[in-house]
Amino acid sequence: MTNWELSVDDLPDPVPQSGQALTRVLACGICGSDLHVLQHGAQQIALRDELAAENPPDPLSPQPFEADQPVVMGHEFCCEVVELGPGCENLAVGDVVVSMPGAFDATGVHAIGYSNRYPGGYGELLVVSDLLALKVPSGLPARAAALTEPLAVGAHAVAKSGIGSSDAAVVLGCGPVGLAVIADLAARGVGPIVASDYSPARRRLAEHVGAHEVVDPGQEHVMAAWRRVDGIRPVVIFEAVGVPGMLEACMRMAPKGTRITVVGVCLETDSVRPAIGIFKELAIQFVLGYEPHEFAGSLLAIAEGKVDLGPLVTSTVDIDGVPQAFSDLAHPDDHVKILVEP
Amino acid sequence: MTNWELSVDDLPDPVPQSGQALTRVLACGICGSDLHVLQHGAQQIALRDELAAENPPDPLSPQPFEADQPVVMGHEFCCEVVELGPGCENLAVGDVVVSMPGAFDATGVHAIGYSNRYPGGYGELLVVSDLLALKVPSGLPARAAALTEPLAVGAHAVAKSGIGSSDAAVVLGCGPVGLAVIADLAARGVGPIVASDYSPARRRLAEHVGAHEVVDPGQEHVMAAWRRVDGIRPVVIFEAVGVPGMLEACMRMAPKGTRITVVGVCLETDSVRPAIGIFKELAIQFVLGYEPHEFAGSLLAIAEGKVDLGPLVTSTVDIDGVPQAFSDLAHPDDHVKILVEP
Repeated sequence: MTNWELSVDDLPDPVPQSGQALTRVLACGICGSDLHVLQHGAQQIALRDELAAENPPDPLSPQPFEADQPVVMGHEFCCEVVELGPGCENLAVGDVVVSMPGAFDATGVHAIGYSNRYPGGYGELLVVSDLLALKVPSGLPARAAALTEPLAVGAHAVAKSGIGSSDAAVVLGCGPVGLAVIADLAARGVGPIVASDYSPARRRLAEHVGAHEVVDPGQEHVMAAWRRVDGIRPVVIFEAVGVPGMLEACMRMAPKGTRITVVGVCLETDSVRPAIGIFKELAIQFVLGYEPHEFAGSLLAIAEGKVDLGPLVTSTVDIDGVPQAFSDLAHPDDHVKILVEP
Repeated sequence: MTNWELSVDDLPDPVPQSGQALTRVLACGICGSDLHVLQHGAQQIALRDELAAENPPDPLSPQPFEADQPVVMGHEFCCEVVELGPGCENLAVGDVVVSMPGAFDATGVHAIGYSNRYPGGYGELLVVSDLLALKVPSGLPARAAALTEPLAVGAHAVAKSGIGSSDAAVVLGCGPVGLAVIADLAARGVGPIVASDYSPARRRLAEHVGAHEVVDPGQEHVMAAWRRVDGIRPVVIFEAVGVPGMLEACMRMAPKGTRITVVGVCLETDSVRPAIGIFKELAIQFVLGYEPHEFAGSLLAIAEGKVDLGPLVTSTVDIDGVPQAFSDLAHPDDHVKILVEP
């Protein structure tokens, strides 16, 4: 990506520094965030700059990238170590690894896949941190291990929601993030899980990963469905759509005292009536990313077969196929997760 | 109040039913909610009806009042029992009491002061529930006891915020609600408490009830003041202004991971950029009212001298003075809390 345009290009090989390993990418999922960046990247940078001007600097935040310089995206990768930089104590050549997409060096923290220095997984080679990389248990295919990152997003959202095993869950939107939330909820034994999406294919996937009831919001209101199948337990609402209007829609549908977890990223300005929140004493928790232990837990859950996001993968492409894959992902009934296998 | 217009009128004496006592009002604070109702009551009813149509009925919610029928407002009352209805086991004639402003009868729950059946404290007589009324410890003046209700609003907001003794607090707006929040925070030993208000008089009151640092937001940003005096502890932000723009202002000023507690009631449609919440993983807790134990705890805190909201009372009026008092309360530098003493 350069200037918010995708292209396939030859770039110099990255060089591992101290505590880093060079790896060959085996599989890398295309994330909705990357589509977002192409569409709304300039807006995101404007917001980032606005917030940076108003808030004290955060040395642990990833360094911003320059949009007019090349960025190789891709942060849901599984790769094989081909060369060690100095000082690696964890990794060995030949290890198959996944990693939180972060790298440290003397200039700070960098987001692999959203950095001019650290290319992501839509390329042949990338550098990982020896400290952050996790070895993939033997026998687990790279395609399955590459789903660690999106599962971690769901696991983090569920953890931050504070949902308990006697609560019910309503999940709005069954894209990769909503499906990861459902899969994590199901693995925790939360029930019922009621999910909604306009796409029949995504509703089928929601059932496959653990939703107890799925609805087409054009046919039945998701809260009506929840009342039909439960209506008694405290309910936690997960907003995984991320378009204007969803926040107030959640506030309107929520029973009194409900916790709403917002994991869909809405970059546009949105309208809400705060009085709805007041009258119902709602709580809204916005969530982003995951913690290292959630990333490791997600790899383990996949390796142990507790969670299977495999059916989300609707197609695989090579690097030349990435631009077409980005276009295909705009059709929610045909595609959910496309893996790049360079 | 009839048709959102204040007037002073003679109405029939209320009659205590089973489990109720008739009382003579000694003192009743004028609450900002009453000013809100006069200004935005039609909007509130429209929102109430909209939410009622979308959500299942809540039998414990107070019965709505009809705006074209008289409503005697006033829900921050201290009064003296003058007559017992049948079946009272708690109260005796002559008791001085405060009460959560609710009454039960065969038709459901009613909000004293926002009901066509149950007049509030801007009149001479009102009916309280024997179950809900609390005897005021002897020696505590009615004027002080009447501040139980506004203190409970602050205590509830603080409790719902989840703030801990090692957190710092930022309070936006030093009207009666913001001041009650500050007083409760101070009684819990939270510090520093940094408060902001454009009114010098209200800033002085904020210091009086326990703020460690007060700022004029026209002179210094409240978060700059917080960083100047602390900047290290996790901070909880209390929004006690309740006008459009405050919610996003809180989201913009909040450090990562901050909990924002919204206790100011904004009835207008507001604009927010949800992405700010996402990027900072903010939590927003809307709060309203209080629980019975918080009401009782507030009476006790006042009686024991742990909290003194007395300086908030800038004037007292009789019933004929209520309309003028409502006008006066529009000038935040002259008045904070006006008590009605019928």
